Amino acid sequence: MTVNETHRLDLRSWVPSASDADTDFPIQNLPLGVFRPRDAGESWRVGIAIGDRILDLAAAARSGLLDGAASRAGSRCASASLNGLMALEPVHWNALRVQSSRLLRADTPEGERARRLEGTVLLAQADAELALPAVVGDYTDFYASLAHATNVGRLFRPDRPLLPNYKWVPIGYHGRASSLVVSGTPVRRPHGQVASDPEGPPTFQPTARLDYEVEAGFLVGIGSALGDPVPVSAAGQLLFGVCLLNDWSARDIQAWEYQPLGPFLSKSFASTLSPWVVTAEALAPFRVGVARRAEGDPEPLPYLLDPIDQAEGAIDIRFEVSLRTRAMRDSGLAAARLSLGTLADLYWTPAQLIAHHTSNGCNLRPGDLLGSGTISGASADARGCLLEITRRGAEPVRLPNGEERRFLEDGDEVVIRAWCERDGFARIGFGACTGMVVPASRPSP
Amino acid sequence: MTVNETHRLDLRSWVPSASDADTDFPIQNLPLGVFRPRDAGESWRVGIAIGDRILDLAAAARSGLLDGAASRAGSRCASASLNGLMALEPVHWNALRVQSSRLLRADTPEGERARRLEGTVLLAQADAELALPAVVGDYTDFYASLAHATNVGRLFRPDRPLLPNYKWVPIGYHGRASSLVVSGTPVRRPHGQVASDPEGPPTFQPTARLDYEVEAGFLVGIGSALGDPVPVSAAGQLLFGVCLLNDWSARDIQAWEYQPLGPFLSKSFASTLSPWVVTAEALAPFRVGVARRAEGDPEPLPYLLDPIDQAEGAIDIRFEVSLRTRAMRDSGLAAARLSLGTLADLYWTPAQLIAHHTSNGCNLRPGDLLGSGTISGASADARGCLLEITRRGAEPVRLPNGEERRFLEDGDEVVIRAWCERDGFARIGFGACTGMVVPASRPSP
Repeated sequence: MTVNETHRLDLRSWVPSASDADTDFPIQNLPLGVFRPRDAGESWRVGIAIGDRILDLAAAARSGLLDGAASRAGSRCASASLNGLMALEPVHWNALRVQSSRLLRADTPEGERARRLEGTVLLAQADAELALPAVVGDYTDFYASLAHATNVGRLFRPDRPLLPNYKWVPIGYHGRASSLVVSGTPVRRPHGQVASDPEGPPTFQPTARLDYEVEAGFLVGIGSALGDPVPVSAAGQLLFGVCLLNDWSARDIQAWEYQPLGPFLSKSFASTLSPWVVTAEALAPFRVGVARRAEGDPEPLPYLLDPIDQAEGAIDIRFEVSLRTRAMRDSGLAAARLSLGTLADLYWTPAQLIAHHTSNGCNLRPGDLLGSGTISGASADARGCLLEITRRGAEPVRLPNGEERRFLEDGDEVVIRAWCERDGFARIGFGACTGMVVPASRPSP
Repeated sequence: MTVNETHRLDLRSWVPSASDADTDFPIQNLPLGVFRPRDAGESWRVGIAIGDRILDLAAAARSGLLDGAASRAGSRCASASLNGLMALEPVHWNALRVQSSRLLRADTPEGERARRLEGTVLLAQADAELALPAVVGDYTDFYASLAHATNVGRLFRPDRPLLPNYKWVPIGYHGRASSLVVSGTPVRRPHGQVASDPEGPPTFQPTARLDYEVEAGFLVGIGSALGDPVPVSAAGQLLFGVCLLNDWSARDIQAWEYQPLGPFLSKSFASTLSPWVVTAEALAPFRVGVARRAEGDPEPLPYLLDPIDQAEGAIDIRFEVSLRTRAMRDSGLAAARLSLGTLADLYWTPAQLIAHHTSNGCNLRPGDLLGSGTISGASADARGCLLEITRRGAEPVRLPNGEERRFLEDGDEVVIRAWCERDGFARIGFGACTGMVVPASRPSP
């Protein structure tokens, strides 16, 4: 994906809110999502966020606004997921983006036509319900932040935070797809086995160490065939787009269950995904080359050696996590920032993660989700989960209203936001990925 | 599920091969699968294996042979997966079984009608192509054999084979759904990072320690809602049926990659599932009560305390693994048995595994797959993978033709078979779950 006309800073949309200074969705962004009008018994369809509106791509296709190279993409938009669109070759995604950009511009004949059909093709986001953007066949969660792996490792192995494999293998594990939920879905505090003594015995109780993890969610486009590894030089082509991911974690359940096969119920109760997918093409201006490696770090093995130029490398997306407690809501306080990091700090690029994932012949399918792992940076204000911020609960974080948190409490709302900015380009945002913790249910008899 | 008329030993089918002494599919079995006639451009549909034939349930429904309570189930049989049928309540599965049994009996009016339509509703298995029985949304792999966990643990921690959590937590992890393949699909030897020194550095190469794992695959029927734990007393109702699972494993890749998040690429290159699902109802006569626990073992925590009677407990299914090398094929030798174990040896019942899986609110969906974990027993001839049999390659196994194996070689075919037998009941089988190892591809550039 390369920078092209759709990224031009001087583009103006006929949708007024697309020019608001604080919008996440200027005309240079054009993220894709799945929505339906509220309370109308209407079906789900694919749309593009523009300012505080949604361009209904199914309606645009029906109205003949998507023609030529974009019509095939348009025909996949009367759907409850992006999967049909994802399964097309990138050339179709590009055509859809280029034509959507022209449809939303104030200075094109296409924009003039679309504007006349505004009542048919445009809807206020406030009047829409949003769904998970994709039917996720498999959800893989990586562990690609060196700072996160180091911070967490230090809590458990102070003398040797990083395991010997870390700088060689993009560490990852299979996550649970069924419990992916869209932003805004309440998250119930899970029960599980926890043990204060590492030797046990455990008790079954609501988790007392509920945490969030701020992650990027990489959504796969065309996928790959079983038995066919994707070379790292081609792997970037499989990335359809990026959304925000909160990989909720119950640290006490995790500590007791995770040996020897990894996290299971400590993660599978819910993972929250943002509804808007910022496409790989929208992110082209924010590529910053291959991931940074410190002096003395090993060079990646050849199958991971990313020979590609800046256009396909790491992506500089800033991730902010904020927390709003029940007391803060009650007193009208805004959410308080807990961290600010960047995806550019990952030890591996998305292309390297995809190449690794398929290196054994494992197939990826359209709509598959690859989590980046918790995005933490080297600085203290860039730690992407409470486990790191509070050093496993030992050093509570103090909120502006005087409250303290070691881990999440019922009523806490976690808000992830992310954006890209660079001189000469419009700032683009990802919307929000939110979830509020609701009390545990009574244990089942 | 209880024992009923469909299990009667004296039932006879008008399909002659259903009475063959060595058939896996007598009229008391009635396993479900997805098939299509070979070379005919016909669509997939659901059928029942009977002797060496298949009863085409979609054709039976179209021909009016499935009426009354079974008609709703029949309407889900013109499908490329069992998922539609699985999503129905067990009462519909039961109706389908009862009516299919009567359709295939030699002494019923329904059987007389079906026999007259034999050309429409019956097909030779040899003329059919078989598919994965379900679209698996999520595949979870457990580790429920105490003997397996002990044998494997002993290789890595001789002084303390079992971790402190083992007898409390049904250990499991998320597996890869996309690379599930149906029996008979060749399995390509995967590449991956392997390290002879635990400190590294690794090399990227074809695995030199390819292994199989013999498992039962539990397929979920109606599923559960996110946030709603299923009590252990009700969890057995979610089990639709059982098939055979080979969880291929690359031990050298696994050893290097698995810390701290568990197995990933060492497992995700392929997992083989048998095409015929033996239903929970067919297995009713072979329940043997709750899992056996040794003196001194802790009692399960209350949410796992299985109060249920024999009808819902552990299932005595014998699992046999055989190996046929290329040399054995070339000289016309049959596959040689490597192990014989029983699912009754699992430390947890299927109901306990399901209750645990949902105890944190994680939802299960129709078609979800739960692997039992490698089925090993206490005796030396009941070890369910080469890692255990050869003690990590140290003690090669000798085959009847003089060949030796530490791990699998190219051209080796692994055959899993399983069956249930009990005095007073017909022996029922599961068919075969096979896979042949084919050489690694050239590494991607």
